[in-house]
Amino acid sequence: MIKALVFDVFGTLFDWRGSLIDSFEAFEHERGLAADWPALVEAWRAAYAPSMDLVRHGRLPWTNLDALHRASLDELAPRFGLAGLEESARAECVQFWHRLEPWPDVRAGMARLRERFTVATLSNGNVALLVDLARHADIRFDALFSAEIFRHYKPDPETYRGAAELLGIGAEELMLVAAHNADLRAAAACGLRTAFLARCEWGPRQVSDLTAEDGIDVAARDLFELAERLGG
Amino acid sequence: MIKALVFDVFGTLFDWRGSLIDSFEAFEHERGLAADWPALVEAWRAAYAPSMDLVRHGRLPWTNLDALHRASLDELAPRFGLAGLEESARAECVQFWHRLEPWPDVRAGMARLRERFTVATLSNGNVALLVDLARHADIRFDALFSAEIFRHYKPDPETYRGAAELLGIGAEELMLVAAHNADLRAAAACGLRTAFLARCEWGPRQVSDLTAEDGIDVAARDLFELAERLGG
Repeated sequence: MIKALVFDVFGTLFDWRGSLIDSFEAFEHERGLAADWPALVEAWRAAYAPSMDLVRHGRLPWTNLDALHRASLDELAPRFGLAGLEESARAECVQFWHRLEPWPDVRAGMARLRERFTVATLSNGNVALLVDLARHADIRFDALFSAEIFRHYKPDPETYRGAAELLGIGAEELMLVAAHNADLRAAAACGLRTAFLARCEWGPRQVSDLTAEDGIDVAARDLFELAERLGG
Repeated sequence: MIKALVFDVFGTLFDWRGSLIDSFEAFEHERGLAADWPALVEAWRAAYAPSMDLVRHGRLPWTNLDALHRASLDELAPRFGLAGLEESARAECVQFWHRLEPWPDVRAGMARLRERFTVATLSNGNVALLVDLARHADIRFDALFSAEIFRHYKPDPETYRGAAELLGIGAEELMLVAAHNADLRAAAACGLRTAFLARCEWGPRQVSDLTAEDGIDVAARDLFELAERLGG
């Protein structure tokens, strides 16, 4: 029996690509700086896993996601003609990740799931980032589980096991909901139940995570369908 | 400028004494077991600080509050004629702490404060306990900070500093709201702002924490008055 659902955040609940492109377009308008924003946004996100791997493999001490986002932006800026971007502008860009828009089903779908289950994030985002996202999008979670509190990034097992432990439940009573097969595979290896949501987070050119891999417990188009499949 | 408020939970937001007495009276009715419930409840709560001190001073490895509550109940049971209390009944009694009733101003007062500030717990209760309390009382927090995630009990400085760090703000931008002068004193020593709430958590015989000590930034009768004092 499932008692709680934990949700991946970037891509699963929030449209990081569309939101960041919108933020950079407003930024261009305010600052008079132009660049290929969709390409920058995609390159920034592509730097996400390698930047966390530096921490996961012990080549960097614990560094939270805001700081990793800042470091990868600094590395990408020259390639996009933004080498002269000043300090305050860089800090502002990192904050764009704190004001992402959720996919359209998320606010109401989460409220419906919360009637029956404890709902929480299980995200590589740092706590302040998750607090800001939940407030910005007006999504009610019962708890925010972040890599920052475990000092381990997903897919390290400490994150999945840590969430179950803090909730005081068995791994088999906890379900991870994510749009990424690799995340779900790692959760299943820790004994969690798994639900795949199909999201087009990379836009029309997305080539991976279009469907659920074998072995995933539930696949759904959105949180409403997930609620139905879980008997909510 | 204050950006976030963190709240002590037991006594400050929840009436542990009245709630536990009610739970034990229902338990007496169901199980046909009688005892001096108010005295047991007060003795159980009095064991709280000494039990955490065993962890704080390194005489016990990390042990969460549910487990400390269970150990102190086991120790108290014979004194209250409950030596024969079976395992399942003891576990049920520990769960009484997960279903406390809030003071009457808390639900609406918190909603009002949340319009202007990030609001979170900062409690010695474990995460599962805090999740259950917030769901039971329908109180919306932006985050749940628990001794369990810091592996330190209040008044250890790691708890106050840890909350500010996870929120990504300075200690002076964070205010602790509590009904206990010692908690506020420890928070102030870490640079936090402090608000005292007058609560009669020990009932009519309460002798301490009736008023705010010198040096506390704000004193209020309830969360509505606190909101007014903070200009909310």
